[in-house]
Order: sequence, then C-alpha cells, then structure tokens
Amino acid sequence: MLGLETSSDPAWAARAAASLDRVLVDHAHCEMKAASNALALAARCSPWPRVVRALVELAEEELVHFRRVLEEIERRGLSLGPPEEDFYAAELRRRVAATRTRRDLEDVVSDRLLVGALIEARSCERFKLLRDELAQRGDALAPFYDELFTAEAKHYADFIDLAGIVLGEPAKAKARYAALARIEASVVESLPGDVTVHG
Amino acid sequence: MLGLETSSDPAWAARAAASLDRVLVDHAHCEMKAASNALALAARCSPWPRVVRALVELAEEELVHFRRVLEEIERRGLSLGPPEEDFYAAELRRRVAATRTRRDLEDVVSDRLLVGALIEARSCERFKLLRDELAQRGDALAPFYDELFTAEAKHYADFIDLAGIVLGEPAKAKARYAALARIEASVVESLPGDVTVHG
Repeated sequence: MLGLETSSDPAWAARAAASLDRVLVDHAHCEMKAASNALALAARCSPWPRVVRALVELAEEELVHFRRVLEEIERRGLSLGPPEEDFYAAELRRRVAATRTRRDLEDVVSDRLLVGALIEARSCERFKLLRDELAQRGDALAPFYDELFTAEAKHYADFIDLAGIVLGEPAKAKARYAALARIEASVVESLPGDVTVHG
Repeated sequence: MLGLETSSDPAWAARAAASLDRVLVDHAHCEMKAASNALALAARCSPWPRVVRALVELAEEELVHFRRVLEEIERRGLSLGPPEEDFYAAELRRRVAATRTRRDLEDVVSDRLLVGALIEARSCERFKLLRDELAQRGDALAPFYDELFTAEAKHYADFIDLAGIVLGEPAKAKARYAALARIEASVVESLPGDVTVHG
C-alpha cells in the first residue's frame, strides 16, 4: 500500500519500544522538520495554488502532532534537546538530487514532494511496527502511534497527489515515485539500525 | 506602545490602499515567512521548552492568517506569484548581526526573537495605517486589517517576553530591544517607499 521497495528490520520495533524516551524526542523533531519542509516547499509552489494550500494545511497538522509529542515528552519529565542528524532524510535527498537530469521548477518541486511521500511512507511503516510492539506490551502509547500511523498514510497519499498536480499528470508522479522508492530502499538498507524514527 | 523609534511615512497608506492587490500578495508571503522563521527559531530553542511551544503556536497563527489572505487573493482572481525580496527584513537582520559582540546561543537566539518583535511592531504600525486608510475609503477589508493589526501587536509583545525568558531577565530583553529599535529606524529611513508591507 505504501509503495516501499524494502521493509524495515522488524527488530527495530522492539529496540525502539525499549528506548521510547529517545524515540519520542526524535519523533518531535521529525514533526517539526516535516512542518518546516512543507513550508519551504510551499514557498516555491506559487504556480500551483492548490499545492500551496495543501502544504500549509499539512504543515499545520504536523505542528499539532509536534505539540502532542512535546506534551508527552514533558509529561515524562524529559527535555527536548537539539535535533539529532537525520542521515536517512539527508542521504535520500542527496541521492535523489543526483539522479535528476532536468532542473525545471516542475521537476525539482515534484521530486521534493515525492521525497516527502517516501519519508511519510517510511514513517508510517515504522509507526505501525511500533504501534504493534507497544500494543503487545500493553503500553499506553499504542493508540497514539495508531493515530499517527493513519495520519502519515494520508500524508503519503497527499504528497503523491500534489506531485501529480505539479507534473500535470498523476501517472507521471506514480512512475517517478516507483523509481525513487528503489533509491529509498538502498538508503534504508545502508542504515545503522539506530532506534530513531529513521534510524 | 510598540517601542519604534521612527514612524512610517503616512503617505505609504494611501499608496498601499491604491495597490491593494499587490499588498495582499506581499502580505501573504510575509505571513508564510513569519511562520517559517518562527519554526527555524523554535528548532534552536530546545533549552527553553516554553519558548519552543510559544513559537510553534505563533507559527500556527501565522499559517491561519496566510490561508485567510490567500482566500482573499483567490476571491479577487489574483495569483500568489513568487515572493518579492524583503529588503527591510534582510537588512535589519544583517545590521543587527553586525552589532553582536557575543556568539552564545542565548545572544543569537534572543537577538533573533527581538528582530521578530521589531518586524511584528513595524507590520502592526503599517496595518494600522492601512486599516485607517481603508476605513476612510469604506473598503470592506478595513475590519480584516483591524484584526491583523491586533494580532501583530500581540506577537510583538510575545517576542519580547520570549527574549526575556532566553536572557533570564525581562529587563535585559527590553534594553536590547530599545537598542535594536534604533537600528530598525535607520533601516526604515533608508527604504525606497514601495507599497509592500515593509516597502
């Protein structure tokens, strides 16, 4: 359903559930980065007003999630701390940019939207693994990750639709997504297996 | 009330009211930049969780304003277009950074918060001038700019409070704001007098 070409190591969920404090802090930063990224993209999308509006609404949703994760962090007496480097997202952007042969605004923007779709898809897959693990442990956060998993799945689909608007043809966006999903799989296979959301 | 050291040319409002289409497009971009800027700052404020939360809430408010301005732009059949360069904000940041003698996170972040306060204060002053001009002309947008003027005034006060938290002492933030307001006045006096929000 998410169009990913590789599955995350199932052992990730048990490690993440055992380090939930660190996962929550990293997760908060992911939501914030997702909101900032959506706005940075919206600023380049003025030729497509529907895309601008959708990205702003998406950013608002990410900020609501951020505040909810921050509440949980504070409830646990943790502190937010500075963001950890997100090797996965940085490497994915770098490898995708390296494959791009054209530099038109349509191509740059649609690729960034599709990278957004891939990051949402991977986060969705990870949150589902984490939700299942937490449910099995009877952890009170299971329903929270259930809700987040659903939100990320919707964002994944939204990003592909928006890339279709920018490219003027939904089929083009789907084909490019499939190509980029192969790159994403190679990045995932090179991950160190850390407990962070994209570790 | 806004602690500004110079007043905008009162003739700006008549010129802006006569070019309301262009003002609205520029205004939309200002709201978007304000939201992005608040998030970029929030990402650096993890040692002060209250500041992070307040900046995220502020960004959410700016995005609501953005969507409202965008609705008005679309109602008028205008298109958003790419952002115009904001000489005022860029020059203000540059001159403030040039006066900074210390490079601690507290100093960098509090200066950026106070620059935020100055930009909100100036926008507030401009929106009040515009509201008065529009009210005199019987323009239906007068109440909208009345509401926005109030929101900017609140953001101005919020930014000064947040700088006080970061500096550990509200009086320090107020003294630094007064010093930066003199720099802001010199930037305003060098403006070309364009019809944009910070023109």
